[in-house]
Amino acid sequence: MSNHIQASKYAAINFNEKLSLFHDQWRPRIIAALNDYHFKLVKIEGDFIWHQHADSDEAFIVLNGNLRIDFEDGHVDIKEGEMFVVPKGVPHKPFSETEVEILLIEPQGIPNTGDLEAGEHTATDGIWI
Amino acid sequence: MSNHIQASKYAAINFNEKLSLFHDQWRPRIIAALNDYHFKLVKIEGDFIWHQHADSDEAFIVLNGNLRIDFEDGHVDIKEGEMFVVPKGVPHKPFSETEVEILLIEPQGIPNTGDLEAGEHTATDGIWI
Repeated sequence: MSNHIQASKYAAINFNEKLSLFHDQWRPRIIAALNDYHFKLVKIEGDFIWHQHADSDEAFIVLNGNLRIDFEDGHVDIKEGEMFVVPKGVPHKPFSETEVEILLIEPQGIPNTGDLEAGEHTATDGIWI
Repeated sequence: MSNHIQASKYAAINFNEKLSLFHDQWRPRIIAALNDYHFKLVKIEGDFIWHQHADSDEAFIVLNGNLRIDFEDGHVDIKEGEMFVVPKGVPHKPFSETEVEILLIEPQGIPNTGDLEAGEHTATDGIWI
């Protein structure tokens, strides 16, 4: 029993293994905590809504695919093996022509739709896998 | 001129491009900030020293190679595409038989040797690339 606990305690988190556990898009899954920050996996395709996070930056690391983030005065293309940090308070709109798999890092409890009440687009923050 | 500034403002950070900019081991380079956290690249090979960080967890994402982290009661092997968070206060010793390239995420200003004064092993936190 103690071996089982120990093995679990010291298991690495494999991104592709975790990504294979879910298939719905736009619903972040939490895979790790770092102090009061969460690491979250999410699959997105198509256009998200314009939103902003007033109190926090948001880090995007692309694991598989290509992500575009539009800003009011430009955009950034982020591909596998790349990252980008959206500064707090900056309106942005994620977009991907085909499904992209992303690792998000941000403080716990940040809604994915930022300061908007966005109905079906708003994902709860609490789903661990 | 404004085009140049805009292009730079919205440029993705490519891990392998940044890794090609330095070759010394054990010296983390900062590539991004997320609120008061830093994303740092580091290359390590061989044994580091036992140390701990009393006030913060520390996240390791392996980009290229294999990392082993020893603990007093076990160890974890982390390979490319995997991550692990070392909880605060837990003594640990990174090790890699051949060079491994890692993305570290932790609060700004955390010395790599934790609470020790470790002379040549202690890297300053301030090198941006």
